[in-house]
Amino acid sequence: MFSKLFNPDSIAVIGASHDPRKIGYVVLKNLASHNYRGSVYPVNPKGGEILGYKVYKDVSEIPDVDLSVITLPAGLTVKVFEDVAKKSKFIIPIAGGFGELGPEGKKMEQKLLEIAQKYGARIVGPNTVGILIPSTGVNTALIVPERSRFPEDGVLSFITQSGALGLLTMDSFAMYGVGVHAFVNLGNRVDVNENELLRYFGEDPDTKAVVLYIESFRNGREFMEIAKEVSKKKGVVVLKAGRTSRGGKAASLHTGALGGNDAVADGAFKQCGVIRAYNEIELMDYGRALAYGKPLNGKRIAVVTSAGGVGVVTTDYIESNVHGVGLKMAELSEEIKRKIKEEIVPFASAENPVDMTAQASDDDYDEVLRALNEDPNVDAILVYALFQTPLISEKLVDIIVKWHKDGDKPIVVGTIGSEFALNMFRKFEKNAVPVYPTIERAVKALRVLYDRGRILRRWNE
Amino acid sequence: MFSKLFNPDSIAVIGASHDPRKIGYVVLKNLASHNYRGSVYPVNPKGGEILGYKVYKDVSEIPDVDLSVITLPAGLTVKVFEDVAKKSKFIIPIAGGFGELGPEGKKMEQKLLEIAQKYGARIVGPNTVGILIPSTGVNTALIVPERSRFPEDGVLSFITQSGALGLLTMDSFAMYGVGVHAFVNLGNRVDVNENELLRYFGEDPDTKAVVLYIESFRNGREFMEIAKEVSKKKGVVVLKAGRTSRGGKAASLHTGALGGNDAVADGAFKQCGVIRAYNEIELMDYGRALAYGKPLNGKRIAVVTSAGGVGVVTTDYIESNVHGVGLKMAELSEEIKRKIKEEIVPFASAENPVDMTAQASDDDYDEVLRALNEDPNVDAILVYALFQTPLISEKLVDIIVKWHKDGDKPIVVGTIGSEFALNMFRKFEKNAVPVYPTIERAVKALRVLYDRGRILRRWNE
Repeated sequence: MFSKLFNPDSIAVIGASHDPRKIGYVVLKNLASHNYRGSVYPVNPKGGEILGYKVYKDVSEIPDVDLSVITLPAGLTVKVFEDVAKKSKFIIPIAGGFGELGPEGKKMEQKLLEIAQKYGARIVGPNTVGILIPSTGVNTALIVPERSRFPEDGVLSFITQSGALGLLTMDSFAMYGVGVHAFVNLGNRVDVNENELLRYFGEDPDTKAVVLYIESFRNGREFMEIAKEVSKKKGVVVLKAGRTSRGGKAASLHTGALGGNDAVADGAFKQCGVIRAYNEIELMDYGRALAYGKPLNGKRIAVVTSAGGVGVVTTDYIESNVHGVGLKMAELSEEIKRKIKEEIVPFASAENPVDMTAQASDDDYDEVLRALNEDPNVDAILVYALFQTPLISEKLVDIIVKWHKDGDKPIVVGTIGSEFALNMFRKFEKNAVPVYPTIERAVKALRVLYDRGRILRRWNE
Repeated sequence: MFSKLFNPDSIAVIGASHDPRKIGYVVLKNLASHNYRGSVYPVNPKGGEILGYKVYKDVSEIPDVDLSVITLPAGLTVKVFEDVAKKSKFIIPIAGGFGELGPEGKKMEQKLLEIAQKYGARIVGPNTVGILIPSTGVNTALIVPERSRFPEDGVLSFITQSGALGLLTMDSFAMYGVGVHAFVNLGNRVDVNENELLRYFGEDPDTKAVVLYIESFRNGREFMEIAKEVSKKKGVVVLKAGRTSRGGKAASLHTGALGGNDAVADGAFKQCGVIRAYNEIELMDYGRALAYGKPLNGKRIAVVTSAGGVGVVTTDYIESNVHGVGLKMAELSEEIKRKIKEEIVPFASAENPVDMTAQASDDDYDEVLRALNEDPNVDAILVYALFQTPLISEKLVDIIVKWHKDGDKPIVVGTIGSEFALNMFRKFEKNAVPVYPTIERAVKALRVLYDRGRILRRWNE
């Protein structure tokens, strides 16, 4: 349904510009530099050439296209819209100045919708940064490339009502090597909405989890029905902003849509198997947990660390319901404890957390993970990959990747530190291991995988 | 009292080694590469020279020193200890293998204490990574420099019972340019303890806030008394690990000390003006808030952003008591709202959050911050410095630094993104501005500054 939006054979850029500061230039630049392989038709009355693309003087001169991006201001967008709609399957009007400004703007965007419907075109926006699909090179977003990063290809699909929050979030996670399969900014959502997209990504084999930033639902009941179906197949994470009355007011000023009652939303999310995030970090962290990790079948966590204090704080976070997630530290079986203590790491504490101390080697980690994988008292393993001690090497990444892939038990990884740790983080990420840079974030990911296990068991009852 | 520990005129390294993998080499290397400017006396029966330092064959050959670092194993440490104690004001026995292993080890470390007391020497440790004082170049910690970072000089003093957790935390914050004035790992804490150090750093003009990682208090009542005095002058943040019963068990396995009842601790912390952290990130985040920020005199927060969604999520976090901090969004005065809307940013939403949209320029930020500084309805400002939009430049850092320094109102900064944002973060940090890389962390810092304001008003009643 949306395949020609995300993987279009041809793109028209209405309002193409020679000025590098203009979005009409940036979109072309994005297409050029992200290796979009389809045909590109820039339109500008001046004609000429931009970035090697031939510029058409009028929309009437271009052939039919899968996608048109309109980079003109609101007034001009309305003016040109019918000509564009005649030729396009999908249209992304970037400009703000529509419904978010009041009734007059609402009328203008309704007009866009009427025109689109007349010609069977679909609209993403207006008032949107548009879409970003790393795998096909389609990218309509405006950022300053020296100061921001676009994400690489990944397995999360990200639907957001706020373009800026979405881009900022992807920017900060891009440093950690986190990519997206698709990014869609709904903008004023005059046509294409989160429900259709969620259903689409639910069926999309390249999407392993869907994350949504939503200030107000187009149709909450329908969303819940779709989310319920999708959550049978893959994880769905929602950051519902405007959950407080004051936040709801801020949201209404932002996108002109009103949020609902948060307690109602919360109950509905639970019923439909939606995992809830409360900020931009949780949104991506949870999405990654669901996309990469195995669901837990029980609460009993084994923790492996070379730093004793990290083990203690982790234990508190696992066990506590306040500043913690209410899971349980596993009681390791006697046989496994004996094995760890006598055969693997005699210098370690073979209780749980298994504190291997700074003397631990890569191979010690390997053997301890093997032992914990065999322990029937363990439902999941949180392993800290800490690269600051002398006997640990980059090989530890491969060892943990192996156990994540081949072991029976769900594994979540914590890796704490600066540049070197960040590089190792990226390696884990590349191998689709759920990895987190702080204690709290690692433990919360475990909780999400536990919740995911409960959801799946419920659907399978 | 501890000045010759942190700023020693002379350091002996007992057990100096030619082997770069040995701590007896690393300590010398640290002293050399961090530009320690006092005298260094390596001791090793083989003699010779290491890293340009002349090696003494026996402790008897060296003069009296301010600090001796013993890098020998536990047994040898005991053997050599009396000779060392005769010559030293302070001794750091690095080796583990003492009290943390059981009664036998306890006896050994008690012996160290007796000897030290006989000669009037003080012990930090044993079983410790020792101390790290960037300003004097004293650093006894073992890390692999290619894989970890030491922090630069800063204004936080960090007392930790866990060396590894402390080093990991400093490593991850070093990437953000966060430094420490002093780092002390108590280890088995046979002598020097957190109470003496807290009192010392409380008086220390170079320490703007004290952060502590503690699994068990040496003397909780005394700690609270000292903390109460110190908190009249500067912020004190405690991460009390082992707060759950299972975490307490993990802590006792880790450092051999038993934690107390957490609810009791919580009440005592509140009474004594101690800010509580629950993980390594909060510990440093809160310490930085207290060291750099102004305490709040009220709950009313104004939020400035160029990203609408960030404003909405921030509003939720400010207002909510669940997944939030229970502060209030300020009701901007009509005069200020008018000014913002009519004179500064007509394209912006002049409600609170002030959403200046992607059209905002550096100067717009300047003027909006000026206006909010004048609003009597505002107790503090949370400003998002987002560098991804075209009209924002690095100048925005200077503008915010100026308002942080010269404005009346407390300011907390959020800056979200990857490498470029990280660089700007470091600039804010260098200028002692409380800056945070995520929404939640920025809002929590505001709450800590609000709590700090309450504490100070209580002490001044």
